[in-house]
Amino acid sequence: MPHELEKYVKSIPDFPKEGILFRDVTGILDSAEAFRLALSELEKCLEGTGITKIAAPESRGFVFGAPLADRLGIPFIPIRKPGKLPRPTISESYALEYGEATVHIHTDAIHPGDKVAIIDDLLATGGTALAAAHLVERLGGSVVKILFPIELEGFAARSTVLKAYDVVSLVSYPGK
Amino acid sequence: MPHELEKYVKSIPDFPKEGILFRDVTGILDSAEAFRLALSELEKCLEGTGITKIAAPESRGFVFGAPLADRLGIPFIPIRKPGKLPRPTISESYALEYGEATVHIHTDAIHPGDKVAIIDDLLATGGTALAAAHLVERLGGSVVKILFPIELEGFAARSTVLKAYDVVSLVSYPGK
Repeated sequence: MPHELEKYVKSIPDFPKEGILFRDVTGILDSAEAFRLALSELEKCLEGTGITKIAAPESRGFVFGAPLADRLGIPFIPIRKPGKLPRPTISESYALEYGEATVHIHTDAIHPGDKVAIIDDLLATGGTALAAAHLVERLGGSVVKILFPIELEGFAARSTVLKAYDVVSLVSYPGK
Repeated sequence: MPHELEKYVKSIPDFPKEGILFRDVTGILDSAEAFRLALSELEKCLEGTGITKIAAPESRGFVFGAPLADRLGIPFIPIRKPGKLPRPTISESYALEYGEATVHIHTDAIHPGDKVAIIDDLLATGGTALAAAHLVERLGGSVVKILFPIELEGFAARSTVLKAYDVVSLVSYPGK
């Protein structure tokens, strides 16, 4: 049975380029009920984990990560593109289809012993999430869960790139 | 008396370039207490306004706007840079110190009669906030408040660029 959130996810053909069927999370945000349902389900996934911080890559990860941190009463740690975080950072680079991307985290944002959940809007190749997980681990934190409202199963990221992690998604699509 | 949040705002000299004293909102996010205090004060500003939607420019606006929408049980409307929103949009361009910037909103995100609060992390020139307000108004919404955790009074945005709006900030600095 499809997840109740599925009807809020709009599918946009040929965005951002031809041949890509873009799964659009903003339909969830347009509905207060859907947004709160998504957040409540993500929150439930973290019960009993002893999580101490939420980390999320910009920009769409912020939309889910910040309210989760507020609900749980724990800090929110932004993971950002180069040149955006003003204090000392460490970074990780990872391959994209063409070229590469780099993400940064403040070095003082995670402390040894921190139990961190990473959240982004959509799991495709898993490259950003893996880079985020490595950043947390290099600062001495452990990654207790990686959460996504939407997963594209065609990339098989949870059984390959992210196989070392506990990955949870709410709405899954079989393709890419 | 300085606002209780002020001690969480870090001041970073020469970021992102020489001569700029950057007021860093991530220090608020690093503390669960400070983050919730900021959100609670922003939420209080919206009591009795009959607000129907929160709109926020990427990326730092998302960090405050999304939890506020969750708290209030209303939709969260992202305002984004070009090429990021997948459905039909309208856009506004505005001048920067060098060049210009453009922001977009989904055309179906705001409906006539919507009462919208706009939130971003920091008020400096007010250019982004004004562009966001125009986008909301062009779609038939009214802007009931524009909120910022941090304001740089040296730009005088609230008495010039944003003088038509009800602007609220939590922590103010006299300079730029």
